[in-house]
Amino acid sequence: MKYSFANDYSEGCHPRILEALAHTNLIQQAGYGDDSHTCNASDTIRRLAGNTDIDVHMVAGGTMANLVVLASVLRPFESVVAATTGHIYTNEAGAIEATGHKVEAAPTVDGKLRPADIVPFLNKARGHHLVRTRAVYISNSTELGTVYTKQELIDLYEFSKANNLILFMDGARLPMALTAPSNDLTLADIARYTDVFYIGGTKCGAMLGEAIVISNPDLKQDFKYHLKQRGALSAKGRTIGIQFEQLLQDNLIFELADHANKMASRLACAFKQLGCPLLIDSDTNQLFPVLSNAMITLLQKDYGFLIWSVVDEDRSAVRLITSWATPERVVDEFIKDLRRVYSVK
Amino acid sequence: MKYSFANDYSEGCHPRILEALAHTNLIQQAGYGDDSHTCNASDTIRRLAGNTDIDVHMVAGGTMANLVVLASVLRPFESVVAATTGHIYTNEAGAIEATGHKVEAAPTVDGKLRPADIVPFLNKARGHHLVRTRAVYISNSTELGTVYTKQELIDLYEFSKANNLILFMDGARLPMALTAPSNDLTLADIARYTDVFYIGGTKCGAMLGEAIVISNPDLKQDFKYHLKQRGALSAKGRTIGIQFEQLLQDNLIFELADHANKMASRLACAFKQLGCPLLIDSDTNQLFPVLSNAMITLLQKDYGFLIWSVVDEDRSAVRLITSWATPERVVDEFIKDLRRVYSVK
Amino acid sequence: MKYSFANDYSEGCHPRILEALAHTNLIQQAGYGDDSHTCNASDTIRRLAGNTDIDVHMVAGGTMANLVVLASVLRPFESVVAATTGHIYTNEAGAIEATGHKVEAAPTVDGKLRPADIVPFLNKARGHHLVRTRAVYISNSTELGTVYTKQELIDLYEFSKANNLILFMDGARLPMALTAPSNDLTLADIARYTDVFYIGGTKCGAMLGEAIVISNPDLKQDFKYHLKQRGALSAKGRTIGIQFEQLLQDNLIFELADHANKMASRLACAFKQLGCPLLIDSDTNQLFPVLSNAMITLLQKDYGFLIWSVVDEDRSAVRLITSWATPERVVDEFIKDLRRVYSVK
Amino acid sequence: MKYSFANDYSEGCHPRILEALAHTNLIQQAGYGDDSHTCNASDTIRRLAGNTDIDVHMVAGGTMANLVVLASVLRPFESVVAATTGHIYTNEAGAIEATGHKVEAAPTVDGKLRPADIVPFLNKARGHHLVRTRAVYISNSTELGTVYTKQELIDLYEFSKANNLILFMDGARLPMALTAPSNDLTLADIARYTDVFYIGGTKCGAMLGEAIVISNPDLKQDFKYHLKQRGALSAKGRTIGIQFEQLLQDNLIFELADHANKMASRLACAFKQLGCPLLIDSDTNQLFPVLSNAMITLLQKDYGFLIWSVVDEDRSAVRLITSWATPERVVDEFIKDLRRVYSVK
Repeated sequence: MKYSFANDYSEGCHPRILEALAHTNLIQQAGYGDDSHTCNASDTIRRLAGNTDIDVHMVAGGTMANLVVLASVLRPFESVVAATTGHIYTNEAGAIEATGHKVEAAPTVDGKLRPADIVPFLNKARGHHLVRTRAVYISNSTELGTVYTKQELIDLYEFSKANNLILFMDGARLPMALTAPSNDLTLADIARYTDVFYIGGTKCGAMLGEAIVISNPDLKQDFKYHLKQRGALSAKGRTIGIQFEQLLQDNLIFELADHANKMASRLACAFKQLGCPLLIDSDTNQLFPVLSNAMITLLQKDYGFLIWSVVDEDRSAVRLITSWATPERVVDEFIKDLRRVYSVK
Repeated sequence: MKYSFANDYSEGCHPRILEALAHTNLIQQAGYGDDSHTCNASDTIRRLAGNTDIDVHMVAGGTMANLVVLASVLRPFESVVAATTGHIYTNEAGAIEATGHKVEAAPTVDGKLRPADIVPFLNKARGHHLVRTRAVYISNSTELGTVYTKQELIDLYEFSKANNLILFMDGARLPMALTAPSNDLTLADIARYTDVFYIGGTKCGAMLGEAIVISNPDLKQDFKYHLKQRGALSAKGRTIGIQFEQLLQDNLIFELADHANKMASRLACAFKQLGCPLLIDSDTNQLFPVLSNAMITLLQKDYGFLIWSVVDEDRSAVRLITSWATPERVVDEFIKDLRRVYSVK
Repeated sequence: MKYSFANDYSEGCHPRILEALAHTNLIQQAGYGDDSHTCNASDTIRRLAGNTDIDVHMVAGGTMANLVVLASVLRPFESVVAATTGHIYTNEAGAIEATGHKVEAAPTVDGKLRPADIVPFLNKARGHHLVRTRAVYISNSTELGTVYTKQELIDLYEFSKANNLILFMDGARLPMALTAPSNDLTLADIARYTDVFYIGGTKCGAMLGEAIVISNPDLKQDFKYHLKQRGALSAKGRTIGIQFEQLLQDNLIFELADHANKMASRLACAFKQLGCPLLIDSDTNQLFPVLSNAMITLLQKDYGFLIWSVVDEDRSAVRLITSWATPERVVDEFIKDLRRVYSVK
Repeated sequence: MKYSFANDYSEGCHPRILEALAHTNLIQQAGYGDDSHTCNASDTIRRLAGNTDIDVHMVAGGTMANLVVLASVLRPFESVVAATTGHIYTNEAGAIEATGHKVEAAPTVDGKLRPADIVPFLNKARGHHLVRTRAVYISNSTELGTVYTKQELIDLYEFSKANNLILFMDGARLPMALTAPSNDLTLADIARYTDVFYIGGTKCGAMLGEAIVISNPDLKQDFKYHLKQRGALSAKGRTIGIQFEQLLQDNLIFELADHANKMASRLACAFKQLGCPLLIDSDTNQLFPVLSNAMITLLQKDYGFLIWSVVDEDRSAVRLITSWATPERVVDEFIKDLRRVYSVK
């Protein structure tokens, strides 16, 4: 196989991280997130968020971040609402339910949740006979590659506050969202217009790690208890702290995300030029071209990607994901192969 | 501060790991533990265990390993029995209870559980009015630094099998146990005389990672579902796989553990020479000397360690832990300082 | 208010139950379901089910029955599939999720689940990244008043067995289903073509109580542990046992259910005669006529019932429920009032 | 067998309850605890408690009451402390752990928890590495038959408030406690010096039912959600409401408890006269005489009771429980039989 576009976690990490790990390797540090690197990285996040008052906690992965945050926020009878495409609804083997909470799901056209999607879950007619919706889960970029505009996020946040809802953003691909051409949000906006969110490292140049950022003061207290109880508190927290320290320095994480987005954009152009429609318009690093089954079979000989959905008898949508590490020359070669395949399909 | 003996996770990882991470960094690998490094390391574990039939899964930390294993093994009304000093009973913020299970605790003299300690939990008089004990949790080395002999483990395993109990060994410090002077167990013995155990990486030279080893065929099926549901399945499983690949090559992990044990042994000698009793005899990397409070105060100026328990008005037991990275010269210096402090105490 | 058709649990219990409670009141009985009345009633159920090998357990209510059965059947990562109208999905405040399990929901036209509705939840593409569907929850009669035919149940059961699924029937209104004009099932069929089900007492003449019937041998063992753990094991189990003893004698429970159905049928006729459509065809004790809002307002002065759904600007569907205790003269009077209201609407 | 002293739930209910059930049987009532009887009974409790501001909820049993209250009070990482003899620690098949919470247990001499017993669980040295103790569970009367004095309860309550702890009293046998000769507490005191408690009906003349009383305003909100979610909200709440209405009228429940206590007291006298020691001094309806094994065997021919603990090779302590329904003549006959057995033992 020439290259896998199956996901954005097929490679290791940005080399600067390995250098930093080596430089700091034998210096003793406190455990469980109290090391100077985690401190440093957290300070940088506070600065980028324009808010010295936020709490930052680092965990090893996204499902872990999702389940700890939601389990810490919800009382036993409370639920979280997500898009039907939301990662917590479709991809986490019941991780949220395993903490005791229902995930309510709303269908959307583009993976983005809007106030009108949430309204039906509020003011349930029979009160305590149903769960009470208390949290809103969104991903940015979404599982379909789309991004929230500033106005959309403000609308959602204001709706959430008016309805006593906690707004939680899964930011596994937040750097890609913030560097998308259509994006008009800043990290400070995200911190301002959510209660809690996280910045994904695993998919944006780190070996592993997500940085959970809590703005809402009510959610800060006792968060480390929740981390510990769910097995999410790393003894060597330095391992994640050092990575974010590097990624956040000189905007490295955003440069890497921008690269991923650009590689996807070039692929998207090539598909469009050949007349292959995209299932959904995305300007981040996931794209969903609709291809003939013949083309898919030919491309699969050399490239890895996911069959996303069946469109009709002859065609399916596939999912291609680029990453911070996807080489330009691989993209060029794929496009060349694509054109060849297209001509013989 | 000159040096911290507070724990064995204050430093990073063995340099060979960083080299391997760098060498393999941009090679694409499958996610979620299906990468070639995890495969390789798992094969090595199978070879060392003398059993090609065992399953291996790698997770980021010890609490995570404990809670996933126990949640996968127990039915809702079943409990696990541990020593009162057991990590799951005292140090995990209710992680096991959060999965719905009671931890029953037996007092022991040395942190080691024996069949006689478990008997009172079996055949409860009132049947379904009480939890049913179904798993036995032991640590090797224990939280007090002691190790199980081969006969002790066989006794426990045979007792477990005779009573329909699952025997689970927390091996966060298993390499230290297996290299302790008094040890007569091999990794193959451990695999043979437990149902499931893990080999700790975090405390033995890795940045993070524990390798869960399942011998009992009944426990293998569906284990990845449990991992995923608890947020324990790493997208970049390679990060842990590469580390174990290195640690298991040429017995590196055992050499590192042996070093930690030896450093502790030299400290123990020094304490004994000065007439400071040890709370418990240990030949691994944790030691619990009883010191006068005056000595403790003086030593704390330069060294980090935990006050373990109050012995009498004038004396307390402290806990010192050495690691794979503790330099010999630091141990020498500590001993010198200790003697000085002792003479002026 | 003249009468409430809001539900079928507004009255107490059949007088024969009160007499039996009085007769047996001071005779000592064993606790926790080991009394002679529970034994007796269980034997009767075995006889009616034509299976001496089934286990019977009595609990106080339907949500309790649902959560204990499902928590006992599912492993942590497994889910149950239900119709979107299913009681466990819409009416139990997250009771199933609180035991750690996802409820997956399929839309249906009539509240009845068919194999084709379940297929999409099986063979999920990404294996352990999603929950595994392991149980099927159906209600008979359904929340829309419809009933399963024998062929439908056989199809569902055979599909379940072919796909390693547990088939569980919520029988809160099973007596109404079994006495519906369109019914062709017997209690023996239910026991034969489900793994576990329950016979509702609360809505069919008892003060409280549901009898859980387990046919599948794999589900029998340890069930009392599950009951105890969820607070479902009644100290005075006799209280429920005596009620089922009476209800099952001389077919009393089925006579009571038949009465409820007949009262609903007379109401249905009256609505149809006036040209008021029914939202769904039901021949049990729940009916859903579509009325003008003006009629609804007038009827609500004297009668209790639920507004079910808005049909258009001028009309809504309402839900009327009759019970074993609904007097014929009340039904006659309602019909008279209905006609009057209709003429002036 | 002549009579069973095995427990206080072997008989049905006070006849007045059956009469009231019959009188009110066909009057329609709102479901789920909103009926007039539950309202009435709740008002009476408010009056007896001298507090119009408390909330009252009725559930079917004690384990149910315990698990709903504690699950509603605790956040995921918080624990409850109980005596090692406490019902939630020893007798509920892990019901509290199944809601995700650790039960921490303190040994006591008499089943009563005092501030000094709780201190060791507070201010744990390692913060978020351990559960945080947040609730205190006591039973009155205790599982050993002892009762709290007013001063003991005030001390515990003040200690709880000073340490941010919720004080919860399991009152399965509260009526027996309040009518014990040594008691100096009133129901108003209980409401004043606990955050939440319940009045047991099941063991004090009802067929089933416990009335949960919440004084602490912070615990009131949303309690019905918790009830519904755990399957504890009875559709026919009237069934329990009517029982408490009767039991609370003219002090019936206290007269019944007083009878039970007096029957036990006569038994206790008889044992003492024969020189049989009591394991613990109790003036409620449980007693624990130490008997020779020969006597036990002879008595067991005619009477039911529990072997409680082995005292020495020749003697064991047994548990005898009297109830509201234990006839005086049975007590007389037992005493006669006891004397006969003693003389031939």
